[in-house]
Amino acid sequence: MSHLNVSDLPAGFRYAACAAGVKKSGKPDLALIVADRPATCAGTFTTNRVVAAPVVLTRERIASGRCQAILVNSGNANACTGEQGLADARRCTSLAAEALGIDEELVAVCSTGVIGVPLPMARFEEHVPLLVRQLSGEQAQAVAEAIRTTDAFPKTAARQVVVGGRPCRIVGIAKGAGMIHPDMATMLAFVMTDAVLDAATAGSLLRTAVSRTFNRITVDRDTSTNDTVLLLASGASGGTAIVGDDAASRGFAAALEEVLQELAKMIVRDGEGATKLVRIQVEGARSEADALAVARSVATSALVKTAFFGADANWGRIIAAAGYAGVEVDPQRVRILFDDVAMVESGLGLGMEQEGKATAILKQPEFTVTVDLGLGAGSAWYYTSDLGYEYVRINADYRS
Amino acid sequence: MSHLNVSDLPAGFRYAACAAGVKKSGKPDLALIVADRPATCAGTFTTNRVVAAPVVLTRERIASGRCQAILVNSGNANACTGEQGLADARRCTSLAAEALGIDEELVAVCSTGVIGVPLPMARFEEHVPLLVRQLSGEQAQAVAEAIRTTDAFPKTAARQVVVGGRPCRIVGIAKGAGMIHPDMATMLAFVMTDAVLDAATAGSLLRTAVSRTFNRITVDRDTSTNDTVLLLASGASGGTAIVGDDAASRGFAAALEEVLQELAKMIVRDGEGATKLVRIQVEGARSEADALAVARSVATSALVKTAFFGADANWGRIIAAAGYAGVEVDPQRVRILFDDVAMVESGLGLGMEQEGKATAILKQPEFTVTVDLGLGAGSAWYYTSDLGYEYVRINADYRS
Repeated sequence: MSHLNVSDLPAGFRYAACAAGVKKSGKPDLALIVADRPATCAGTFTTNRVVAAPVVLTRERIASGRCQAILVNSGNANACTGEQGLADARRCTSLAAEALGIDEELVAVCSTGVIGVPLPMARFEEHVPLLVRQLSGEQAQAVAEAIRTTDAFPKTAARQVVVGGRPCRIVGIAKGAGMIHPDMATMLAFVMTDAVLDAATAGSLLRTAVSRTFNRITVDRDTSTNDTVLLLASGASGGTAIVGDDAASRGFAAALEEVLQELAKMIVRDGEGATKLVRIQVEGARSEADALAVARSVATSALVKTAFFGADANWGRIIAAAGYAGVEVDPQRVRILFDDVAMVESGLGLGMEQEGKATAILKQPEFTVTVDLGLGAGSAWYYTSDLGYEYVRINADYRS
Repeated sequence: MSHLNVSDLPAGFRYAACAAGVKKSGKPDLALIVADRPATCAGTFTTNRVVAAPVVLTRERIASGRCQAILVNSGNANACTGEQGLADARRCTSLAAEALGIDEELVAVCSTGVIGVPLPMARFEEHVPLLVRQLSGEQAQAVAEAIRTTDAFPKTAARQVVVGGRPCRIVGIAKGAGMIHPDMATMLAFVMTDAVLDAATAGSLLRTAVSRTFNRITVDRDTSTNDTVLLLASGASGGTAIVGDDAASRGFAAALEEVLQELAKMIVRDGEGATKLVRIQVEGARSEADALAVARSVATSALVKTAFFGADANWGRIIAAAGYAGVEVDPQRVRILFDDVAMVESGLGLGMEQEGKATAILKQPEFTVTVDLGLGAGSAWYYTSDLGYEYVRINADYRS
């Protein structure tokens, strides 16, 4: 659904992807992203206490603020694989480092796929060196293909922004469709830019952007063991460094957030079995935190999501989900709108005519549900999908 | 699936039920439970901030520790109905009080069904007086029928226990199938006993029993606006009063918990679209609270529940759900069993042979998944259902 043009790509990076045989299907499953020189790096990772081996290793590696290569495979998550898993992850990075002629400490590794199965290391031993020989400045789209698991389509986004008179490019490549819930689920995202950034600024910009994008989407509340977002900045644009809070920095932050938001929405739209992308917009809460709690509660309610699937303007379920968010809600002040159609005023339904209009909106592939609590100025949003038969079908026999 | 015999019923109560036309289907939808004299009463209610009118009123009424009659309707929840809803709930109780010739303050009212639609009061005006004329000591089963909404079967349970040499009876009548999650979802339960109890003891016994039964079940995490559990003790057994912590008191507490547990398991088994009843047993946690958090996390994971539906021994999802429970989990110490089949030791899968045995267990209609964290002595359990196509079908168009 998204395709990168070569002109979108930031300077200073090369890419390669192949079918290494990790997936039984024979589809592409191994990819490499390499910076010409050690790049500034920042990352955010799953909050699950059960953390996959590649996450343990990559978190350690990028603590230095520098990274030159990311090796990523789909088809196997290398999670719940014990000491062997950690040794395998390490071996993956040394394979890449040897073939690239760089320090192993500069290589990150990410895996996504089935949990509890050892990595087929022979596939890596054979294919990582081949992958290095195929590196090209133009193959970013092939990386997006190779990291798919249950994804229906590859996910990429790009923006350009001018910093200190020089154009900078930001490109994002992500995967994720199921097990999507904050903080970041079975989701991998790699963001490359040729802007000039130090590690502290990169980390702060990334955390802010992730908190407003990937951490506000849900498909099924499950948080995976492997979620990783990595930002690499090559500095190859040759522009001025982005620091502090000036206009250039804000422009870059906005562009970064746009890239992540575009990817995040693609992930929800590609939610396993999802047919609808719904923005839950909460207004009038006592605080932003309260608004976020209500938005999350509504966005994750299985009853609300099945009602979206059935195009049923069942506002009772929405108000009930708001009620159990654990924050102040006065039903008598609640307004609910489906896009611009008011359905509830002062906690009371507005009748069949409005419901007819709301139903028409619910049949669209994309709409916004606004819940105004009428208590204050706090607002927040969340993106969610509907919950339909396909979700069950995909997840009842994912491994078979 | 459950049927009460007249010999199960505690002395001192009469029952009636009818089809009053609240439901469009013409099925029974109105019921009355009346004690011969004001009974000792305790209740537990939804923790949702959006609370239905009958909950507001009943909570107020039973604060006195006494109650003589419960009027309950299905087909309409009288929730999100504003001031009118509260006036209607009050009118329901005065209709019953007038026909019974008792104080309105002694009447509780419960409603379950669709949210946001005013109660059809004409149906109550006409049928409540008729209902009073039909009261009989034998119609408890009819009450169980009349309170059904999406329930596939009526839910009742009974126990006898000897207190001070005299037999006491406990009978429970419940409804609930969807929107089931602690604390107590779209669930109503009425427990009648002829034991002799004061209000404080009744409250304490009920809270303990609910915390170990109804608050440990989940079908879909949604907590409703109407959940209510009421305990009425008529004292008509003429036995000694249950107070303190002697053997008789413990015997009664155990029987009460058994009644509630039986009803709770029926509710999960009847979870909308559920085909399996699964006990998630957590052992070896640092504390009971930690164990409960892990049990809840596993029991509510949509991915775990769809794997149960597909009879897929996907222990990776179980360990991942344990990992995001927010408490200490060391994957390398985790053991997982499906009934008595070990599937994971020290966080590692035990291979295809064990998986074959586990799959056979997952095809049963009822089984236990044990997650041993290997960290301490804390244990707890949770009951959950699988998540299949029927859940989606039922909830996508509940109101049509």
